[in-house]
Amino acid sequence: MSWAGLLEELQIVGRSATGGTTRLPWTGELREADEWFAGRARAGGLAVERDPAGNLWAVPDAPGPWWGVGSHLDSVRAGGAWDGALGVAAGFEVARRSQRPVAVISFADEEGARFNTPTFGSRALTGRLDPAVLDRVDQDGVALRDALAAYGVDPAGIVRAPEWLGRLSGFLELHIDQSRAVWDLGVPAATVSGLAARMRLRARAQGRANHAGTTSMEDRSDALRAMAVQIVRATAVASPMRATATRMVVEPNALSTIPDHVTAWFDCRGPRPGDLDGWLASIWDDWPSGACEVESRSDGVEFDGGVRAALGGPEVPCFAGHDAGMLAARIPAGMVLVRNERGVSHAPDERIEVADADAGIAMLVRALERLP
Amino acid sequence: MSWAGLLEELQIVGRSATGGTTRLPWTGELREADEWFAGRARAGGLAVERDPAGNLWAVPDAPGPWWGVGSHLDSVRAGGAWDGALGVAAGFEVARRSQRPVAVISFADEEGARFNTPTFGSRALTGRLDPAVLDRVDQDGVALRDALAAYGVDPAGIVRAPEWLGRLSGFLELHIDQSRAVWDLGVPAATVSGLAARMRLRARAQGRANHAGTTSMEDRSDALRAMAVQIVRATAVASPMRATATRMVVEPNALSTIPDHVTAWFDCRGPRPGDLDGWLASIWDDWPSGACEVESRSDGVEFDGGVRAALGGPEVPCFAGHDAGMLAARIPAGMVLVRNERGVSHAPDERIEVADADAGIAMLVRALERLP
Repeated sequence: MSWAGLLEELQIVGRSATGGTTRLPWTGELREADEWFAGRARAGGLAVERDPAGNLWAVPDAPGPWWGVGSHLDSVRAGGAWDGALGVAAGFEVARRSQRPVAVISFADEEGARFNTPTFGSRALTGRLDPAVLDRVDQDGVALRDALAAYGVDPAGIVRAPEWLGRLSGFLELHIDQSRAVWDLGVPAATVSGLAARMRLRARAQGRANHAGTTSMEDRSDALRAMAVQIVRATAVASPMRATATRMVVEPNALSTIPDHVTAWFDCRGPRPGDLDGWLASIWDDWPSGACEVESRSDGVEFDGGVRAALGGPEVPCFAGHDAGMLAARIPAGMVLVRNERGVSHAPDERIEVADADAGIAMLVRALERLP
Repeated sequence: MSWAGLLEELQIVGRSATGGTTRLPWTGELREADEWFAGRARAGGLAVERDPAGNLWAVPDAPGPWWGVGSHLDSVRAGGAWDGALGVAAGFEVARRSQRPVAVISFADEEGARFNTPTFGSRALTGRLDPAVLDRVDQDGVALRDALAAYGVDPAGIVRAPEWLGRLSGFLELHIDQSRAVWDLGVPAATVSGLAARMRLRARAQGRANHAGTTSMEDRSDALRAMAVQIVRATAVASPMRATATRMVVEPNALSTIPDHVTAWFDCRGPRPGDLDGWLASIWDDWPSGACEVESRSDGVEFDGGVRAALGGPEVPCFAGHDAGMLAARIPAGMVLVRNERGVSHAPDERIEVADADAGIAMLVRALERLP
């Protein structure tokens, strides 16, 4: 099967009738993608193994450590076909073209779309997963530890995942650009200089449920109005910062009742860690105490200079979190982004050209020739 | 059973473990309340009948037309124990104390909490129910016509409900005050002068799903931020107007995706119909065309002068919709509100004193002595 045909095949997995791709971690949809991974590995003469964190490895019949190439197969709800999947498919293509033995890796739960646990697998592999997240529940009340066990991953064994990191000399990841940054450079693919600092915040507004028609404006405490005011303030940032209220739950969400309480999740990113601190201080300092919690935070990362030089080409910063960013704290790592004309991502109509992805793959293959 | 004991009994029906009362129309919870109604009717020597709109009648063994007294037994989600149920329980007490034959009525689906069809039963009885509402679906995708049929009410027969209106000389309703208006007058119960104009509006904001971290602030179209701005504007009204964003649905509501589209429902009330027109014009005129729809509207009502004089006592306007307001367009009707110290309503902790309700019942009994 050709490289382009392989990508087409991948787009079918997890694709819904409405066109979006939904492959939440530890679900039947992801299991289908894992089976696709196993088939690709067999076709490439690689052996499939699952590490204690649930990451899938397709390893060569050659003594390690090897360079790893890959990304992830899980997706957000109603996301696009390329995010993550491109990098895994590219891993198999790099392994086929490269003169060196390469391990292809599909990291577990990169998006964190089900349990709010982004980069779960690469975090566990580098020994920075807080075991407390195993108690988190999805929107159906299923605990992460139970979802793992049902998928065949022992929750108690995750602490042993870092033992597997020694099998890698380094890691390379190809990914769709989730902005128009590479497109604006006029190149098919570019090397990532580093990942921006980012944070997820959960905020709660507590009002008082009451009749929406009869309660005077003076007597009411309206949680949705309070949160709306805060959303307008918190998202009034200028580039290169980004701030978004992404998710919101209104209770009781009834047609004639003043909202009693509202929970909203905010995503904030900036080139430097201090950008996040400034946003927190200026926006949230007068929010009622205890009503706001940082759920996750990363101060970002600068990729290894040797890897960047080997990848070559122009460089762009990246505002998304990625498995390569997690690994960069422990081993040499690097990333290449494939241009995306409209910058659409995490949505059904994200799109790249196969020829551009091919140029990115060539950068990875060439880098593996140059790297020690 | 005493009047106070009767109210206690009613509070148990449909009460959840967390303390709220949920009796959505055409459900098992409502069926339990209907059985309570039948038991009360038997105890009072009244015969139970269901009209073609699903309203429950407990009628006397005396030639009609009679005065009707009652309210409704359905509730909002997680509402209070008194809203509606008080008026039905009071109906049986008025029938017991009055020298005249009285029909006790429990109107169907007054709140409209399941299909957004407020005053469904009294609207049908007065011939003003749009049959198109039968196609509305609840949040589980069940159509109103199917819910009715499953409950034993023939959807095709609803058009015959107005034939039943001739059985009534007039209608009186006792209800918990859903504001502090009666409390502020210093009386246990007060006569309602009329019902305010009110409107439900559904508005949609269309953005474009995209990655919350990577999409620059300039390149994004954020539906939740757009709706938040509109909520802040639309709810910035002063008494006696009331405006509330009550319900909101965010899509895809995912942790790292810019919201693609948001639907919000607004409840607006004012003493005069022109207040609603002014709010619509000033707030929604620059909202994208087609993105905003008036789902229901009532221009309010002034209650019959003769009924008000017979009820006596000080008067208050009322900002809620009620079955008595529907009936007032066709037959003499009136309402009495029982004071509510904190004004809490449509919430688990709404509360009145039985002694105050008793004073309201006495007003109804006395009015029936005075009315022709």
